[in-house]
Amino acid sequence: MTTSLPITDRTKVRRKPTRGSHERAQIDAILDEALICHVGFASEHGPVVIPTTHVRVGDHLYIHGSAASHMLRSLAQGIEVSICVTLLDALVLSRTAFHHSVNYRSVVLFGTATLVEDTPTKLAALAALIDRVVPGRSAACRPPNDKELAATSVLGLAITEASAKARSGPPLADEGSDLALPYWAGVIPLHSSRGTPINAPDCTLPWPA
Amino acid sequence: MTTSLPITDRTKVRRKPTRGSHERAQIDAILDEALICHVGFASEHGPVVIPTTHVRVGDHLYIHGSAASHMLRSLAQGIEVSICVTLLDALVLSRTAFHHSVNYRSVVLFGTATLVEDTPTKLAALAALIDRVVPGRSAACRPPNDKELAATSVLGLAITEASAKARSGPPLADEGSDLALPYWAGVIPLHSSRGTPINAPDCTLPWPA
Repeated sequence: MTTSLPITDRTKVRRKPTRGSHERAQIDAILDEALICHVGFASEHGPVVIPTTHVRVGDHLYIHGSAASHMLRSLAQGIEVSICVTLLDALVLSRTAFHHSVNYRSVVLFGTATLVEDTPTKLAALAALIDRVVPGRSAACRPPNDKELAATSVLGLAITEASAKARSGPPLADEGSDLALPYWAGVIPLHSSRGTPINAPDCTLPWPA
Repeated sequence: MTTSLPITDRTKVRRKPTRGSHERAQIDAILDEALICHVGFASEHGPVVIPTTHVRVGDHLYIHGSAASHMLRSLAQGIEVSICVTLLDALVLSRTAFHHSVNYRSVVLFGTATLVEDTPTKLAALAALIDRVVPGRSAACRPPNDKELAATSVLGLAITEASAKARSGPPLADEGSDLALPYWAGVIPLHSSRGTPINAPDCTLPWPA
């Protein structure tokens, strides 16, 4: 695994470049924490952005869906794609409207996705998609049968052209007369959490965690 | 305000159409709850997806950023844009790998964004961007001065072509031999919450909430 990706025309961080990174460790950490990504591509009607789940396995990001999905069929033709993953960490409040901001970590990837046709790789990606949300879960459910596997498409995007961008910490320090303004300044953290599992109506087993 | 948007080639919900809607009430509720959106457009290097904050005011969705932002300058030229907003509500676990899913609510908008040049509209959009994350906050900070206003671009997208899509509830009921499998089935809710406000190092005022 490379530790840092090359900087290209489209991954060069132009705005606030000190917030940018091309380090795989930082990119991977964001991809691995976020539960969904947003996939952008050019359709015959113009740009489209669609949300979906994803998983990183080594140097590839995988997405999946129905083999009949318009998005997956479009991407499988080898058109360019951009995938963005964003974690929103906090609201940043300044004494001035202008310096209000958010703390976040995001990754934007570029490239061409490939239909995964090798069955072991496809099964591994599908298992990883499940295991990343509930560790070990792919071994605690029935694996896909041949019909289900045929009805599912998996696409892989090599993580070769990507950048991460992040903001953290307090608001920019106010200056001069702004500093004396009688307004609160600071950060409101945002948290994501999981609630109590709710059994399906036809399931009487206890949640196994 | 129209109550339902016309269905176009790119807003027709083809996959699982029963999950789709073109009702403004449903679209607006999702836009108003989500804190960030993902903006997709065609750059000279191919498709790009970028996260940013947004606010809906009436029949328009507004985004903002530095007047020097590549994305804002590109969009201001009148190119097609797709903006997607997604709320992830729950993980859906089935006895079968195939029927694992997520509960979500999402909106995809299409159109051409316009640079907001009218100062009162621009100020109102900027205030709304702040007030939606902390109600009343735009009156509890210093408004933008002329220099700050000139350094900020606001783009508006009329909400005329959009669709919502949502999944809720338990996993699809398993059938036949799957029903007897010794695996848990149900839903794990996902929650977003705000933590305790953290003062900026130069602020000794108490959080005013």
